[in-house]
Amino acid sequence: MSQETLTLSAPALRRFIRDAFLAAGMAHPAAETATDVLATADEFGVSTHGVKLLPAYLGRLRAGGARVHGQPYVTLEGPAWALVDGDSALGPLIGVFGMQTAIGKAKSAGIAYVGVRNGGHFAAIGYYSLLAAKSGLVGISVANDTPSVVAPGARQAVLGTNPFSYAIPAGRHTPILLDMASSTVAGGKVYQARMLGHPIPDNWIVGLDGLPTTKAELYPEQAALVPAGGHKGFGLALLVEGLAGLLSGAAVTYEIASWLATTPDQPTHHGAAFIAIEPGILGPREEFLARVDALIDEIHAAPTIASVDRIMVPGDREFERQRRAQHEPMVLSADVAQNVRLAAELVGLRLADYL
Amino acid sequence: MSQETLTLSAPALRRFIRDAFLAAGMAHPAAETATDVLATADEFGVSTHGVKLLPAYLGRLRAGGARVHGQPYVTLEGPAWALVDGDSALGPLIGVFGMQTAIGKAKSAGIAYVGVRNGGHFAAIGYYSLLAAKSGLVGISVANDTPSVVAPGARQAVLGTNPFSYAIPAGRHTPILLDMASSTVAGGKVYQARMLGHPIPDNWIVGLDGLPTTKAELYPEQAALVPAGGHKGFGLALLVEGLAGLLSGAAVTYEIASWLATTPDQPTHHGAAFIAIEPGILGPREEFLARVDALIDEIHAAPTIASVDRIMVPGDREFERQRRAQHEPMVLSADVAQNVRLAAELVGLRLADYL
Repeated sequence: MSQETLTLSAPALRRFIRDAFLAAGMAHPAAETATDVLATADEFGVSTHGVKLLPAYLGRLRAGGARVHGQPYVTLEGPAWALVDGDSALGPLIGVFGMQTAIGKAKSAGIAYVGVRNGGHFAAIGYYSLLAAKSGLVGISVANDTPSVVAPGARQAVLGTNPFSYAIPAGRHTPILLDMASSTVAGGKVYQARMLGHPIPDNWIVGLDGLPTTKAELYPEQAALVPAGGHKGFGLALLVEGLAGLLSGAAVTYEIASWLATTPDQPTHHGAAFIAIEPGILGPREEFLARVDALIDEIHAAPTIASVDRIMVPGDREFERQRRAQHEPMVLSADVAQNVRLAAELVGLRLADYL
Repeated sequence: MSQETLTLSAPALRRFIRDAFLAAGMAHPAAETATDVLATADEFGVSTHGVKLLPAYLGRLRAGGARVHGQPYVTLEGPAWALVDGDSALGPLIGVFGMQTAIGKAKSAGIAYVGVRNGGHFAAIGYYSLLAAKSGLVGISVANDTPSVVAPGARQAVLGTNPFSYAIPAGRHTPILLDMASSTVAGGKVYQARMLGHPIPDNWIVGLDGLPTTKAELYPEQAALVPAGGHKGFGLALLVEGLAGLLSGAAVTYEIASWLATTPDQPTHHGAAFIAIEPGILGPREEFLARVDALIDEIHAAPTIASVDRIMVPGDREFERQRRAQHEPMVLSADVAQNVRLAAELVGLRLADYL
């Protein structure tokens, strides 16, 4: 692959992504929504889950596996819950619809669960949790995926990376925001190391014998991911499967198609779940936000080891990068830059128009 | 300490615990409830969270820090949520009340959140999740605690071990049941190693310099626990603090008193949260249970590495031990046996009557 990076401004990246989605036939509001999901990941520095996904997303939109005019809808609901059919729309649109449904219900019910079936690849699932926090609610978002992660002691993948995320709104501070794979790292990090030719630590993947290996090139054909912290990560992945797949009635494990490996004309049937909790129903909102701020202050003030400047809460690093991206041009690494060029080719955009 | 183990039957252990609680002045149904919480942990093989806790529990009941006739009650509620004041009753009684409240609401609302303030030490929090699963619901239980765990890069504890647990009911199979500390291990495991003089791995605690140490004897005065999987475990601990402490209005971090170190006449003000989800509201219950069974079958059938017989789902090991405890006498390790003798002394029971 080309080792050339690509430098462009955050607004230009957003224009590019939006224009690509529009060129692929998406309607305007949907294109804006999907753009915000991908661009936010890049601005956060989560380069594996931003514009890098665009060529594959465009390929699925073109081939029909992700339906260009898909419209997620509620199939069944109560005051504190809903089941959503994703209509095989683009994953980010389903994610936003799912969490917005949960937020709407939690605002009056206090808490709401929304289970999603017929979903797609959801990009960075933390985005949906953050949607809740931006509305003043605590948000939890999870999604299942086709198996790529072994159980402790197993030689073959049994669960997906099954990401788990949450966000807690704060007052003075940016929200607490965690978005993590149940595996040591998401598959995208191994792909990235593979593409860039970087070595990987020995706790990311195991080979076909179930034993640790540092050869990123074995993944995914001859290797599987390792659950984070062994049985703890595996247990978390299984909870995600329960919330996103079993309770929602969505596909689970091998019923889900790989969004990269499956022919792009086939839907993938990912499942997801969104939980929102409204602090303002449980008590005075200002008091809640002040207590969140105090907790963050307390953590920030913790004494550090010699090599660390300051203790951060989850999300601090991402919001700091996003602030920086408003003033400084973003440098996309070679693997991301390659996919940006590929996306431009796919929909006939001139990249020079955005640089 | 004495290195003598203690051998007794599971029913005898239950009688002993119940009689000890009755001798401490608890009413009969409350004593039975608290007994089931502790004895289940011992039968599950979770010896750090069973009868070993009894002397400290009895000490708090006697001194008043845990109120013998405390009655947890709902302070505020909606159809899908409630806030509970634990009335500084014994933790296990508050936990059972909290989850039962969540179950009752989720049965009609689909999902329910119950936040608890003025709680106590909750023993093994997985018990409350299992209560939900036994009623056919998915249960999630979390509790906060006084800080004993560092943030990644910090030299001083900022959060408690903040346990996280969930249970998913199955059809043919026993429920999926996970109960884990957000730290690599619960503090009780370090105490146990300290009491038994066992060495510990280098990822359990850090010293006052924030660097790893294998000296269990430093904990807790000169060492703190390490979050499981670094930032992932820390992020989970922070979610627990959000659900159990911030949303519930309970005490957080250093507002919570250590249940072991604080004088036993003072309440500890632990917080907790219980979430229950009713699969039978979201769809046909039998279908849900059949899908859980199929997922468990799939995991059980995963090919193993050479040194492993069979892949287990969380809870398999614990239910297997509990089945065995119905037929074979239980052998309590020296650290647990010592506390059983201490408990007997405290309330004037003759241990010989239970052997």
